Amino acid sequence: MKRWEDNVRRVTPYVPGEQPKLQKMIKLNTNENPYPPSPEVEKTLRQMETDQMRLYPDPAAGELVRAIAEYYGVKESQVFVGVGSDDVLAMAFLTFFNSDAPILFPDITYSFYDVWADTFRIPYRTIPLNDRFEICPQDYRMNNGGIIFPNPNAPTGAVLPLDAVEQIVSSSPDSVVIVDEAYVDFGAESAVGLTAKYDNLLVVQTFSKSRSMAGMRIGFAIGSEILIRYLQDVKYSFNSYTMNRTAIALGAAALRDDAWFRETVAKIEATRDRTQKELRRMGFSLHDSCANFVFASHGEMSAADIFSALRERNIFVRYFNRPRIDNYLRITIGTDEEMDQLFAALREILGLSA
Amino acid sequence: MKRWEDNVRRVTPYVPGEQPKLQKMIKLNTNENPYPPSPEVEKTLRQMETDQMRLYPDPAAGELVRAIAEYYGVKESQVFVGVGSDDVLAMAFLTFFNSDAPILFPDITYSFYDVWADTFRIPYRTIPLNDRFEICPQDYRMNNGGIIFPNPNAPTGAVLPLDAVEQIVSSSPDSVVIVDEAYVDFGAESAVGLTAKYDNLLVVQTFSKSRSMAGMRIGFAIGSEILIRYLQDVKYSFNSYTMNRTAIALGAAALRDDAWFRETVAKIEATRDRTQKELRRMGFSLHDSCANFVFASHGEMSAADIFSALRERNIFVRYFNRPRIDNYLRITIGTDEEMDQLFAALREILGLSA
Repeated sequence: MKRWEDNVRRVTPYVPGEQPKLQKMIKLNTNENPYPPSPEVEKTLRQMETDQMRLYPDPAAGELVRAIAEYYGVKESQVFVGVGSDDVLAMAFLTFFNSDAPILFPDITYSFYDVWADTFRIPYRTIPLNDRFEICPQDYRMNNGGIIFPNPNAPTGAVLPLDAVEQIVSSSPDSVVIVDEAYVDFGAESAVGLTAKYDNLLVVQTFSKSRSMAGMRIGFAIGSEILIRYLQDVKYSFNSYTMNRTAIALGAAALRDDAWFRETVAKIEATRDRTQKELRRMGFSLHDSCANFVFASHGEMSAADIFSALRERNIFVRYFNRPRIDNYLRITIGTDEEMDQLFAALREILGLSA
Repeated sequence: MKRWEDNVRRVTPYVPGEQPKLQKMIKLNTNENPYPPSPEVEKTLRQMETDQMRLYPDPAAGELVRAIAEYYGVKESQVFVGVGSDDVLAMAFLTFFNSDAPILFPDITYSFYDVWADTFRIPYRTIPLNDRFEICPQDYRMNNGGIIFPNPNAPTGAVLPLDAVEQIVSSSPDSVVIVDEAYVDFGAESAVGLTAKYDNLLVVQTFSKSRSMAGMRIGFAIGSEILIRYLQDVKYSFNSYTMNRTAIALGAAALRDDAWFRETVAKIEATRDRTQKELRRMGFSLHDSCANFVFASHGEMSAADIFSALRERNIFVRYFNRPRIDNYLRITIGTDEEMDQLFAALREILGLSA
């Protein structure tokens, strides 16, 4: 090893869900939306002036920020945007989790939280979910340097009612509480309204799931003006121009078509309900999901074996080889046709009749 | 102040060059390219399938990385891409400048370096340029935790010959040396070739200047495979999907049209040479620039006054109110027509006849 390597920050990198590039596959492994974004997005893309690309984008991404502020009924100064919610969350970790006291998050949750904590050398403590995989607000009543949890939680899909979210926020007034609402549009109640009451609450959302734009990398946070200002100061110290011209324009376009958004979400919710019934019929046990995925365990066959057998059939789902959840599969809700093919494959794998 | 604010990372944010939005203005303040990107870029944009935007982009940005590797004659595993060179540089600071010894950079240089150092709490020491605003390699021969400098330097435009760059790299084998080549295509010699010889050398470039794509946020680094792997580990621990689908596709498209690139650069160089002559005729003193801007000081009128007078005429240039350079203007090279309007305005401001 060379001596310059002594000064290198070593990290255990996050491993994103695989992005196989097969012609014929059913991709239910990274919680993407099976439906395309609004036709408004295509129209806007076709009309973009490429001559303008020689110019820097608006560093404040004003057009997108305005559209988000209007949509959610908050001030523009309460909105922060980034390159996917991962960028927003990374900036929030860097900005707000700066204490010697440990930050708190669930033991079973989005697997990026401990990676960011390690990367930025933030002490952390994980709080076990209960046996039903639920977050218990009273478990978070302790000295902490910050709190973060997804609602609905990932990869369980379990939802926390808004009064329980408020309990966690109100019992930690001396630290910043982040609610990661990547999946909120699929059936949970957003905490955005609570940001008016709690200036230490940051709510993070994304265009990657419910708005069918994972490929454009758009995430955002809503919070009190002072919280957003701190976040912006760090962001401007990191990279002033994060959102490129296409992300700004297409993100704003997507928000203009609310009917498309509602219709897409309703279709996914209907397919999810059908999927849950079908999986239970096949002997899977699962709690009700409020996300665009289900989290399921089978009574007779191991998750690892089902995962491999599906893979051989070019059906990709997500398997986490981690304590407590190593017998579960996280299955993204696709189109009805894709789910029918999944059911057929599962019946074959499990030796069930149709 | 609330108690949660005690744990907030406080930074003095970088202030980007202003992005005024006037209908009629001459914008020579942020070193943008006055010419549009290649028609290949427009063609690719028009053909993009918006249906694909529901899917995550390739986290490795393979199409873009391949195009860069082919163009520069290196392996794909030697290329790292990011959201503009600022993102690449921020990741490199976080990854490589992790020592207790101070990192070194020039006292007059890109004004983001000290911001990153402060944000990541990296100790640093600035090395004064000589009286001709040149970097002197021997000044960097000291114990250090890393070295970074732009070549050509900003905002001076002064170039360092490749053998001088190599002197700096070879005399610090125990730390990572970053050469920030944002402006290299306008007349300097790139250090990319040296990366084969020095595994501690990272060369950073951007699509924002010579490739007319500031609005798309594309930067990249070339270095030894091991250096790039370390950088990627940190990047994947921060945000796995930084490059959106449009940035990947349009960046690769731009590289396919080398004739357009060469023609654009040649036009800017010719206008720069004419600008230097014209400014000297008006009593400005300036060293030869190898960038797409000039750095000029006038014998009789202060830079601050000229800056204000130009602003009143809707001509925007850059003025830095900093020690040693507070009587200089950094003027981006625009089209010939824009520069003619600048010259006319300057003659008026300075009371010169045409």
